[in-house]
Amino acid sequence: MNDRPTRVLSGIQPSGTKHLGNYFGAMRQFVALQEEYPGECFYFIADYHALTTLRDAEALRSSVLELAATYLAIGVDPDKAALVRQSDVPEVTELTWLLSTVTGMGLLERATSYKDKVAKGISPNAGLFLYPVLMASDILIYDATLVPVGKDQIQHLEMAQDMGTHFNEAFGAEALVRPEWRLSKFAKVPGTDGEKMSTSYGNTIPLFETGKKLKKIVGRVVTDSTPLGEPLNPDDCNVFALLKLFVDDAGLEELDGWYRSGKRDGEPFGYGHAKQRLAQEIEAHFAPARARREHLLAHPDEVEQVLRRSADRARAIAQKTIARCKRACGLA
Amino acid sequence: MNDRPTRVLSGIQPSGTKHLGNYFGAMRQFVALQEEYPGECFYFIADYHALTTLRDAEALRSSVLELAATYLAIGVDPDKAALVRQSDVPEVTELTWLLSTVTGMGLLERATSYKDKVAKGISPNAGLFLYPVLMASDILIYDATLVPVGKDQIQHLEMAQDMGTHFNEAFGAEALVRPEWRLSKFAKVPGTDGEKMSTSYGNTIPLFETGKKLKKIVGRVVTDSTPLGEPLNPDDCNVFALLKLFVDDAGLEELDGWYRSGKRDGEPFGYGHAKQRLAQEIEAHFAPARARREHLLAHPDEVEQVLRRSADRARAIAQKTIARCKRACGLA
Repeated sequence: MNDRPTRVLSGIQPSGTKHLGNYFGAMRQFVALQEEYPGECFYFIADYHALTTLRDAEALRSSVLELAATYLAIGVDPDKAALVRQSDVPEVTELTWLLSTVTGMGLLERATSYKDKVAKGISPNAGLFLYPVLMASDILIYDATLVPVGKDQIQHLEMAQDMGTHFNEAFGAEALVRPEWRLSKFAKVPGTDGEKMSTSYGNTIPLFETGKKLKKIVGRVVTDSTPLGEPLNPDDCNVFALLKLFVDDAGLEELDGWYRSGKRDGEPFGYGHAKQRLAQEIEAHFAPARARREHLLAHPDEVEQVLRRSADRARAIAQKTIARCKRACGLA
Repeated sequence: MNDRPTRVLSGIQPSGTKHLGNYFGAMRQFVALQEEYPGECFYFIADYHALTTLRDAEALRSSVLELAATYLAIGVDPDKAALVRQSDVPEVTELTWLLSTVTGMGLLERATSYKDKVAKGISPNAGLFLYPVLMASDILIYDATLVPVGKDQIQHLEMAQDMGTHFNEAFGAEALVRPEWRLSKFAKVPGTDGEKMSTSYGNTIPLFETGKKLKKIVGRVVTDSTPLGEPLNPDDCNVFALLKLFVDDAGLEELDGWYRSGKRDGEPFGYGHAKQRLAQEIEAHFAPARARREHLLAHPDEVEQVLRRSADRARAIAQKTIARCKRACGLA
């Protein structure tokens, strides 16, 4: 099992409209990773997971399609990375069962994501409780060796490591490959209220918004009340922090000057101008992706074809893993 | 979904040597049911379930083979009943995931079989906790309408009914068929100590034992200490109760006379003679099945062929059910 090439796995939750926080957090990294590990990236759209909180078939179907179109639009290249609809590889549910038989109840009861959801008043179903087992299965079934994670995912990755080890030890086999996690360092993306941009805070700026609607959303970004024409501090400004994500160094230097002087070409410069610029930057930056996405949403067959092709590749690997596991535990 | 023919489902736990209690309880009924509902019986060997307590691949493999051979030997006819190795139909694990998302944690926490196992000191794993969901899935995936149960299984059947209903209601679909249970009335089979024959009591008489070993086991059946030649009470005798399972009415009348008189053909008659007769009856009764079983165990390919054929039939049905469920909840 050694000397295998690094294989990357990452999951995508099919929920909510994607926003700048998502893009500069996980999404952009999907594209970077496929360049670093071409042919060895597996990105799956977690529709089985979504069922733990979503009970609307049409909404699930359309969000999976939309998500696949979105990731293809921002640059996920199916020749370098498999973009897999989780439920196209039902072997993950079989591995979920196998792992559940070597997973102590205590481990799952300690899972903070379960405790958090219950604390938030989400009526606990068994799927929510089993969530970490399905997640471990998603990782282990592809022999993934590298899983980029945010801080809140480290516990799940450690659980996946434990479950794989427990399975191997229980049956004296090397059936499952140990996945390692790598903490992703994401750009800090402030939301309109200055807190971390997050759907649950209601402070997001959507990726693909345009025109007046986008201007209106950007207009909500909180600033101090310095009057127009007075000097502004770019180091303590949410608008400037967002501009940094789009504008190159030369452009930022120029903006920095306008901020600190409160003037642009002799005219007064204020937060309104900065916001206008931000809206323009966002709209321009995502214009090509937006066009690709619109094309794909108008041609769902193309998306479906990509998903099918990825699923074929993913499933072939999953079937080998399951076969190894079944041999190991005596099911075959 | 109405007007469908009755479809019978029953499960077989691959554990322990089969004994008279098993035979006159569930096993004989498998043969009776296939005559009542030919072509509509599905009997599955629960190897996925077995993993919740067994971690020995070789033991699991051989007990599945042995069990399949045993059931075929006692008369299960693959032309009338599918004899399915559970793990040959991995769709049950996919349905298990789907059902888990509509199953409240409370329902599973109240399952007495889980509570009992934990109370017995079995270290609880998540598979054990999920046991009723997998069981529901086994039933629902074949559109079973009739499940014969012992008293201790009624709760599991009610849970299966609930899960099927919850799934249908959650997605406004008629994806799963409601299974009904029927309480089986089994012959009371006393063990060697007079209690109900059960592996967990260590009081069993194996089905396929012969010769001296069988005589030794039968010799252990508890009686009172009436001396040889004195009158005996057949109504209060474990040996007589066991003889009833094998001997026809005329034979029983004759035995009854020997018991009550303490004499056979003028010679003294006692428990020793009755036990000798019992051993002969057991050995003769199961002789044809024993021969078939030995043949099958010597030709595992024949067993495998039956299992494969049954799996093909079962899987075709399971795939239709899963397709209905996936459409209903938006996974396809």
